[in-house]
Amino acid sequence: MADIIQPRVLKGFRDFLPQAEMERAALLEALTTTFRSFGYVPIDTPVLEYAEILLGKAGGETEKQVYRFKDQGGRDVAMRFDLTVPLARFMAEHAGELYLPFKRYHMAKVWRGENTQRGRYREFMQCDFDIVGVDTASADFDIVATIAAAMKSLGVSDSTIHVNHRGVFNRFLARAGLAEKSVETLRIVDKQSRIGEDETRRLLAEIAGDVAASEILEFIRAGEGFQATLERMTRIAGGSNPDSDRLSEIFDMADACGLASVLSLSPNITRGLDYYTGVVFETFLDAIPEIGSVCSGGRYNDLASLYTKQRLPGVGAAIGLDRLLAALEAVGKAGKTIGYTRVLVVNAEASLCTEYQAAGAAMRAAGIACEVFPETRKLGGQYAYAEQKGASFALVRGSEEKERGIWLLRNLAGRTNAEYSSIEAAVAAMHRQAQ
Amino acid sequence: MADIIQPRVLKGFRDFLPQAEMERAALLEALTTTFRSFGYVPIDTPVLEYAEILLGKAGGETEKQVYRFKDQGGRDVAMRFDLTVPLARFMAEHAGELYLPFKRYHMAKVWRGENTQRGRYREFMQCDFDIVGVDTASADFDIVATIAAAMKSLGVSDSTIHVNHRGVFNRFLARAGLAEKSVETLRIVDKQSRIGEDETRRLLAEIAGDVAASEILEFIRAGEGFQATLERMTRIAGGSNPDSDRLSEIFDMADACGLASVLSLSPNITRGLDYYTGVVFETFLDAIPEIGSVCSGGRYNDLASLYTKQRLPGVGAAIGLDRLLAALEAVGKAGKTIGYTRVLVVNAEASLCTEYQAAGAAMRAAGIACEVFPETRKLGGQYAYAEQKGASFALVRGSEEKERGIWLLRNLAGRTNAEYSSIEAAVAAMHRQAQ
Repeated sequence: MADIIQPRVLKGFRDFLPQAEMERAALLEALTTTFRSFGYVPIDTPVLEYAEILLGKAGGETEKQVYRFKDQGGRDVAMRFDLTVPLARFMAEHAGELYLPFKRYHMAKVWRGENTQRGRYREFMQCDFDIVGVDTASADFDIVATIAAAMKSLGVSDSTIHVNHRGVFNRFLARAGLAEKSVETLRIVDKQSRIGEDETRRLLAEIAGDVAASEILEFIRAGEGFQATLERMTRIAGGSNPDSDRLSEIFDMADACGLASVLSLSPNITRGLDYYTGVVFETFLDAIPEIGSVCSGGRYNDLASLYTKQRLPGVGAAIGLDRLLAALEAVGKAGKTIGYTRVLVVNAEASLCTEYQAAGAAMRAAGIACEVFPETRKLGGQYAYAEQKGASFALVRGSEEKERGIWLLRNLAGRTNAEYSSIEAAVAAMHRQAQ
Repeated sequence: MADIIQPRVLKGFRDFLPQAEMERAALLEALTTTFRSFGYVPIDTPVLEYAEILLGKAGGETEKQVYRFKDQGGRDVAMRFDLTVPLARFMAEHAGELYLPFKRYHMAKVWRGENTQRGRYREFMQCDFDIVGVDTASADFDIVATIAAAMKSLGVSDSTIHVNHRGVFNRFLARAGLAEKSVETLRIVDKQSRIGEDETRRLLAEIAGDVAASEILEFIRAGEGFQATLERMTRIAGGSNPDSDRLSEIFDMADACGLASVLSLSPNITRGLDYYTGVVFETFLDAIPEIGSVCSGGRYNDLASLYTKQRLPGVGAAIGLDRLLAALEAVGKAGKTIGYTRVLVVNAEASLCTEYQAAGAAMRAAGIACEVFPETRKLGGQYAYAEQKGASFALVRGSEEKERGIWLLRNLAGRTNAEYSSIEAAVAAMHRQAQ
């Protein structure tokens, strides 16, 4: 007999035990229902792709973090590190088979060899939803409405979707003579909530001087309601323009759909990525904003320019599932599924096993999730198992009950027993109790 | 502007377009419902693990096919090639946190660098379900019942679960003086349905001689009903024994649960792997047996001996999702989901966009999956889009309808229109129609 290999997972990787996996499944199911109610359809793409395709646009940090290797055939391959690059490749490759606008959701794992000391995982799940092929306020708003509905479906009644528009910011920067420094400026501004106003001012002054730093800080000052903030931003940026009009349209739609109170215009939200070209979103739970944005995204001019000459504008967002799960747990909204079993058929005597299985089959046929304990064991141990699985009832028949022609249905929470002359009678009683 | 990178996926890998992904999702959802009704709970494990752990027991073909590489930290890692080895590692690592018997399902992708010329994929999904920690007929039967329920949930009414017991076969081989050749013999017998009786006889004669080859062929001869076959096998194997008793108990349970007709005792089914030690299963769709087994498995004595000294017997099976999807398509039982959208709100005039979004929100609030077309376009194009998404209705309001204070609800299949004075009235009409 060989030595034992120590069972362990790689750093930054996790097992999901049943309790955690059931919570994740409940969350994914709620999100799926929401996405479908808005007409998004699912796609899937390979975990492994040609490195050249996945890394075409990436550089620096991303490239260093990617799991990349030579496969058996000597191909340079990599594991996907997000779901956006695969979507771009997918849209370019299947353009002829897809209708536009294309509304898709994709919930799947991605991998990044991040520094685990920062509490990051190297394997995590993303939930992306995008609308590709149109550039309209209606599509932008659809993403806002989807985020709001997703939060509601998870039982989070109080969340705020912060929205901003890159274009308005750029107009302001151009007016202030800072157009060439827009990328750096956006990156600094994006950090404000983490580094504070003083440090933001210092960093901005370094690249743009003290006066401009003050102007930028005035521009990004958080506001007095959506419309007042929009008016101020628009004025500082040089007056009405298509980008501020877009924000106004989005607000009108939110207002008409009862979502005005969920939407906040936040000029300091820029999303660090060069990638976005229009509106940008971040979503915070009001009860626990410090955990950060649980759903972020924005509009991009051209999704798939690396792979096709067809121009594909789009808008979308991604839910950070791990952060969201942590947030839901913190606010007490995490799923409480212990198991799916409603009834455990107790295995009291080996000679009655066939009857137990027939009882289980009858329960399931009546729509009741039911498992049969697969070996004879002391009743206490079987009741403990039933509680581990979250069962409400135990169905018991030993030789005594068999002789009397009855089944005992034990209410596990109440520790009370009731007798029934048949499985059908027990099922009927359970259905009555559930009403 | 850089050159375009040709968008393409690796050989043996696939994109799932919405139609295919919706079919897969429908299948996974049906299986999930079945697993939960039997009290199985889900787990998840990492895609990447230490190569030493994944490959501990593997060798030969498996090892050559595994995607294995050095990660950024120089660790020797590999992508999982099945869900059984990760389960073994998981059970050993978390023994203290888990209750036994442990019933789990796991539906996830695995990777093997197989020869794609044989029509194999290098990335495919497995659906495993196992009961670990007991060795009883009741647990064995649970797997049979789960397979039968899974097939039924997919709309496949006619399938056959072939069952056999390795132990009965080994008793026969011992009696025939062939105990030392059991592994080779089982491997040849397992191929019989593919290579035919003559070739099977030739190969068996090579290792065991002509007389023994005839005996083996007599033993594995397909039968005359479960009980008659069991009696013949038991007699040839030397009389009643715990292994033939096990088969008999499983049959009694199937009979009590109305599954006797689904179960076939097939002494020629051995499953090629050394791994199995007790019952083995294969599942064929009666309408299309030539596609092969869509769900196979069996009992193993000791799941996790590589990683722990705790003995963990178990029984389980795996559904080959790709083969099952192909089979369902061949017999016309594949899901027919075109999309999730029930109503498309047509975008007739840009100035009414806010109203369209409010109408969409009202529809969804009433439980109707609804999407708003996000830009103004000709009606014909929007109706075509609605059909692409599988919508039943289009909700239309242009300036004329707006003036008249009505909404037009178009039945897309019937090409008929009805007028309603409010969204609520349209919703009520749709609900009536759905009844």
